[in-house]
Amino acid sequence: MSLTNKMWILKTRPKGLVEASNFELIEEAMPELNEGDILIQTEYLSVDPTQRMWLTDVPGYLPPIQIDEVIRSGGMGRVIQSKNPNFKEGDLVSGFVGWQTHLISDGKGFRVIPELLPIPTMLNVLGLTGVTAYFGLLDIGEPKEGETVVVSGASGATGSVVAQIAKIKGCNVIGIAGGEEKCGWLEDCGLDHVIDYKNTEATKELRKIASAGIDIYFDNVGGPLLEAVLYQINQKARIVICGSISNYASEDLPVGPRNLSSLIINRAKMEGFLVLDYFDRIDEAIQELSKWLMEGKIKHREDIQEGIENCPKTLNRLFTGENKGKQILKI
Amino acid sequence: MSLTNKMWILKTRPKGLVEASNFELIEEAMPELNEGDILIQTEYLSVDPTQRMWLTDVPGYLPPIQIDEVIRSGGMGRVIQSKNPNFKEGDLVSGFVGWQTHLISDGKGFRVIPELLPIPTMLNVLGLTGVTAYFGLLDIGEPKEGETVVVSGASGATGSVVAQIAKIKGCNVIGIAGGEEKCGWLEDCGLDHVIDYKNTEATKELRKIASAGIDIYFDNVGGPLLEAVLYQINQKARIVICGSISNYASEDLPVGPRNLSSLIINRAKMEGFLVLDYFDRIDEAIQELSKWLMEGKIKHREDIQEGIENCPKTLNRLFTGENKGKQILKI
Repeated sequence: MSLTNKMWILKTRPKGLVEASNFELIEEAMPELNEGDILIQTEYLSVDPTQRMWLTDVPGYLPPIQIDEVIRSGGMGRVIQSKNPNFKEGDLVSGFVGWQTHLISDGKGFRVIPELLPIPTMLNVLGLTGVTAYFGLLDIGEPKEGETVVVSGASGATGSVVAQIAKIKGCNVIGIAGGEEKCGWLEDCGLDHVIDYKNTEATKELRKIASAGIDIYFDNVGGPLLEAVLYQINQKARIVICGSISNYASEDLPVGPRNLSSLIINRAKMEGFLVLDYFDRIDEAIQELSKWLMEGKIKHREDIQEGIENCPKTLNRLFTGENKGKQILKI
Repeated sequence: MSLTNKMWILKTRPKGLVEASNFELIEEAMPELNEGDILIQTEYLSVDPTQRMWLTDVPGYLPPIQIDEVIRSGGMGRVIQSKNPNFKEGDLVSGFVGWQTHLISDGKGFRVIPELLPIPTMLNVLGLTGVTAYFGLLDIGEPKEGETVVVSGASGATGSVVAQIAKIKGCNVIGIAGGEEKCGWLEDCGLDHVIDYKNTEATKELRKIASAGIDIYFDNVGGPLLEAVLYQINQKARIVICGSISNYASEDLPVGPRNLSSLIINRAKMEGFLVLDYFDRIDEAIQELSKWLMEGKIKHREDIQEGIENCPKTLNRLFTGENKGKQILKI
């Protein structure tokens, strides 16, 4: 077998948006499989904001990607050869496939996925971004019927699922997103209010729309809106810190909220979490999310780019806001 | 009976430290008691940072003190006349007595206190500041043996009790306070490390001393140290936001921490609380704190000023850092 793997490796660390010069697309002949190995052909990559963080050399929840290493990425692939009894040829598997066309693995960290839905849908609502939404909102946010939930980055893969689960739980849901197109889509998703931060003054809109107070703020973006939210939280409010996409690609971190003492007056909490900690409960999330998907209660959309050569460009789409829905790259 | 009450009322709202012109000390003849009333003679005032917040016209956990109202203050007084069956002459009572020598009350909000310890000690360790320390650390912080606890404002009435309860619970305790005298006293209290923020660079010291990471940060002061702490927290760290004395008397709030995303990476939480919410469990706290006091496990000191005419000056001592221990005013 003379199979060749095309893979993107890290050459220099990016500042701001990634550039072609930060990476190199190289080709390498695949070695033979050892006993216990599987050969996976990548089909789809899940392109996520957290990947940008892994490119920076600061300690995080996973080690930074090292120079000359393949870019780490979740995704799905097909087992095309197996010397591992837990996998057979033709299996669809999910895991860290990386920015590459092929990989050899001992199977650890990969799950066989039943093909009940299109792969992009599974990578979206049933993927890590959907599961993040599920546990972040339900376990950390603990929404109760009638409460007001504000979601930033609401048109994103995590945000849109958060907002719709909050609707399922009977909450009054305010989504914040950038641009008419995204906001229009969120209205179709059934949110109670949508704030377009690109075309209105979001803090002023929020003051008006959430005048009765905010019980849950699910923050996907980080940055200055948190201060406005803190001025409006209700007693016992929960602020779920899920992401800070506004910071991942910037050199200078914006200053934080001046009014953290609002947490005292309102006996409120702010909590961060990582979906990694919920891996032992992932089946629960996938079961519930699948049910809501089948019942049509969760709308979703995927933005599918194509071609291994477009990995870096596709990552940037998340930070320029070009992506419309979950960003996916078809190999 | 021709009893006269001397009382401090609010005339103008202070900016920064309070000034004599913000208040007026007036005298008023006390009326006769109605059925159900008690007449209290104030003996000691508890002088607390939160009072400065009540002087500012912003919504808080209690309504701001209004112009021409008596200044709200906790304290203890003696019942000198009673038409209420729940109180008898000579009873020592605790509650919001206010900056005044006498008051008439229907008894609501006042508790009869057994005189087992000197009144200043009771107002300190067994008073609201001690009870705040108890519930804030144990209920919100949930310290476990061997964990590292950092306390800001550690020589204050709440901070010093927090630090010593943390020691009782087997934690490694780092206290931060201003000046040699206060830091020396904290060393006598048995803390593992004391950082003098006036004579060293606190963030640098903290990086060195807490190099193994911080599990609990009990923040009594607000302000810039939080950012340094956030860079050093361990997984599942708890940040207890108890006070922000650095902000109460300032017009411009300092910017907040830039690195709240550390809460994500470390799955950490930051939570505010008010002792008001624990009033139904106050006996539990007082019982435990009394036991520790008797066993000599909690050192304490009170800074006792004298004279009703010195109320405003005594309040400022908290913000200039002049007070050595719990600030009390003897009437």
